[in-house]
Amino acid sequence: MSSPNQPLDLTVDGGTLTARLVDFPSVSGEETALADAVEAALRAYPHLTVDRFGNNVVARTHLGRSQRVVLAGHLDTVPIADNVPSHVEGDLLHGCGTSDMKSGVAVQLRLAATVVEPNHDVTYVFYDCEEVEAERNGLGHLFATHPDWLAGDFAVLMEPSGAVVEGGCQGSLRADITLTGVRAHAARSWLGDNAIHKAAEVLRRLVDYTPRRVVIDGLEYREGLNATRIDGGVAGNVIPDECRIHVAFRFAPDRSLEQAEDHLREVFDGYQLDIADASPAALPGLSQPAAQAFLAAVGGEPRAKFGWTDVARFSAHGVPAVNYGPGDPNLAHKREEHCSLSAIAEVEERLRAWLTA
Amino acid sequence: MSSPNQPLDLTVDGGTLTARLVDFPSVSGEETALADAVEAALRAYPHLTVDRFGNNVVARTHLGRSQRVVLAGHLDTVPIADNVPSHVEGDLLHGCGTSDMKSGVAVQLRLAATVVEPNHDVTYVFYDCEEVEAERNGLGHLFATHPDWLAGDFAVLMEPSGAVVEGGCQGSLRADITLTGVRAHAARSWLGDNAIHKAAEVLRRLVDYTPRRVVIDGLEYREGLNATRIDGGVAGNVIPDECRIHVAFRFAPDRSLEQAEDHLREVFDGYQLDIADASPAALPGLSQPAAQAFLAAVGGEPRAKFGWTDVARFSAHGVPAVNYGPGDPNLAHKREEHCSLSAIAEVEERLRAWLTA
Repeated sequence: MSSPNQPLDLTVDGGTLTARLVDFPSVSGEETALADAVEAALRAYPHLTVDRFGNNVVARTHLGRSQRVVLAGHLDTVPIADNVPSHVEGDLLHGCGTSDMKSGVAVQLRLAATVVEPNHDVTYVFYDCEEVEAERNGLGHLFATHPDWLAGDFAVLMEPSGAVVEGGCQGSLRADITLTGVRAHAARSWLGDNAIHKAAEVLRRLVDYTPRRVVIDGLEYREGLNATRIDGGVAGNVIPDECRIHVAFRFAPDRSLEQAEDHLREVFDGYQLDIADASPAALPGLSQPAAQAFLAAVGGEPRAKFGWTDVARFSAHGVPAVNYGPGDPNLAHKREEHCSLSAIAEVEERLRAWLTA
Repeated sequence: MSSPNQPLDLTVDGGTLTARLVDFPSVSGEETALADAVEAALRAYPHLTVDRFGNNVVARTHLGRSQRVVLAGHLDTVPIADNVPSHVEGDLLHGCGTSDMKSGVAVQLRLAATVVEPNHDVTYVFYDCEEVEAERNGLGHLFATHPDWLAGDFAVLMEPSGAVVEGGCQGSLRADITLTGVRAHAARSWLGDNAIHKAAEVLRRLVDYTPRRVVIDGLEYREGLNATRIDGGVAGNVIPDECRIHVAFRFAPDRSLEQAEDHLREVFDGYQLDIADASPAALPGLSQPAAQAFLAAVGGEPRAKFGWTDVARFSAHGVPAVNYGPGDPNLAHKREEHCSLSAIAEVEERLRAWLTA
C-alpha cells in the first residue's frame, strides 16, 4: 500500500491505479484529499485545462473538434466496511469502491493522461457526494454553477455496469399515503375507526397492479410499484387513528416526471398522495449519432438501466448519456465489493479505441 | 391538603376520604406508604383481622356467616399528570385516581371501619400494581401465595363503573402475524417478494370480519377483532422482506381462552400466529344467588363489561365477580380525571344496605 501522501502516478496500469485510489479513503463528505491529488495529477498534463469547484475537478482538451464527449465519475464511496486497504486475489481487486466506482475513475484518469489527441474533444469530470442526499451531489452543483464546464454532445457515466453499455435510467417517484381513523380502546372497538384496516384497499391495489414493460431504443424497461414502508398503531390495546404507507414507483423513461405522478394519482384515486421524492428518468438516447459511434466502438449488446443514476442529470441538460464502467453493479455497497482487473483493462482499451479511432 | 404522614381517619365521609387518598401519591410500584397507612388504619378496628403480603392488605370479619363476600380494589394509580393534590369543584373531586379507583378504595375503607356486624362475612382486599404488567399485579400475587385470604362466594371489584353493576368482562387475546418476503432494490422489484403487499390479504380478512354479539345472563357482549399495530419496511428504495401485524381480539365470556385462540387461528388460517398476550374472560355470574342478592340491594340495570378487569382473576378461581364502583370509567387515566362526590356517597350507601339488610 502506497502512502496517500504520494502524488498519483497516472502511468501505472488501470488495476494498480484503482488499488491506489481505493487506498485513498474518500467516504462522501471526505473527498478533499483525493480531489487534491486528482487535480494535482491532471495539472501535470499540458494538453488539459483543469478547473475546480469545491471537491469537483473538471479536465478538458481544447482541440477544436466538432464534437465533445464527457466521461464522468464520482470520487466518493459509501462508508468503509473493514475493506480498506485493497488487496488482490487472482484477477480480483477487493476493497471499498473497487466497483463503485474507483475502477471507473482510474480508467478516466488513465485516458485523460494518455490520450493526448482524441478524435473528439473530451471532458473528464470527477465529482463528490454521489452516495448521499441529492442536494449534496457534486455533479448537480457543477450543473448549477458551471454548466459550461459540462457541455457536450454525449456523456458516459462510468458507474459499474459490468463492462456492458446500460442505456438511460428509470425514474423514481416516492409518495406517502396517510390513512386516518378514530382512536378508541380495543375493548370498545366499535367506537373507533381503524386506520390500519383502511390500508387493505391501498395494498389490494398494489397487489392487483400489473407493472408495465416497454421497449425504448431496443432496450426493455420494467417498471415497478411497491409499498416499501408501512407503519401504524398507538398501542396493542388501542384502535389506531393513523396508518402511513410509503410507495415507490420506478418508471420507464418514456414517462415524464409529471406523467408518472399523474399515473400514480390515478392508481390511488380517492387517497391523498404526498410526493416525498421525485427523480426524472433518462431516455437511453442510443439512436443519437454520438451514441451510435460509441456503441460501435465498445461493442456488446446494450441493456436497459433500472436503477437511477446521474445520467439523468446529463439527460435533463440535453446531453444524451449512458452508463458504462468496469465495476460489477451487484457488488456495489457490499462488504465483499471487488472488481475484475481484466474488466478494468478491457473498458480502458475499448474507450481508448473509441477516442482514437 | 392533609399531610401524608398523618394516619388515615376512616370516620370522615367517603368524598373527604377519597381526597385524602388522592393526596397520598401511589403510582404503581410506589404504594408502600399508602399500604402502610391502610394497614395501620384497619388494625385499629377489633372486628377485623388484618394480613399483609408485600404492599397488599387483606382485612376480614370472622362472624361465622354462611356466606363470605369480597370487596376488592387496587391502591395504585397511573403516573400523576399535574393533577395532584386533589381539588373540589361543586360535586366533582378532581385528581389522579379519583375515578380509578381511590373513590372505590375509600368506600371499601368506610365499610370496613363502620359495618361491624355485616350479614355476610366480608373480606376487604387492597392490592398494588394493577396499572402495570400482569406479572406485577398484587391480586395475582395474593392468589398465588395466599388463596385462602381471597376465598369467598361472590366478589365486587370496585373499579370505576359509573355506579352501575357491570357483569363479568371480555377476554383479550393479542397475537403477532409476521409476513416474510425477499429483499431487493426497488429499481429491480421483480427480484424481490414484497412482504408488505402480503398484508393486503390479512387486512382484508379483518375488514370482512363481522364481530359477534352475544347475550349472557341478560347482558350483551360485543366482540372485536382489530389490527392495532402494523410495521414493515427497510428503506424507501428497498422491497421489504418483513411486515408485522399485531392483532387484538376481545372476546365474550362464553369463549374460553382456548376457544378464542382456536377461533383466531381459524380466521387467519394459513398464517403463523404468535400469541403475545392472553387474558381469559369472566362470565357475569349474575344468576348466582349471591349476585342476585347483590343486584337486588344495589338496584339499577346491570350491563356488560367490555374492558378486561381483575374480575377475571376471581372468576378463574371460582369466585363469581362483578365490577361496581363510583368512578367514571371514561375518565380513567386522563389528566382531567374526576369523580362525582354524590356517586361516592351513593355507592357506599347501597353497599351498606346490601351488607346490613
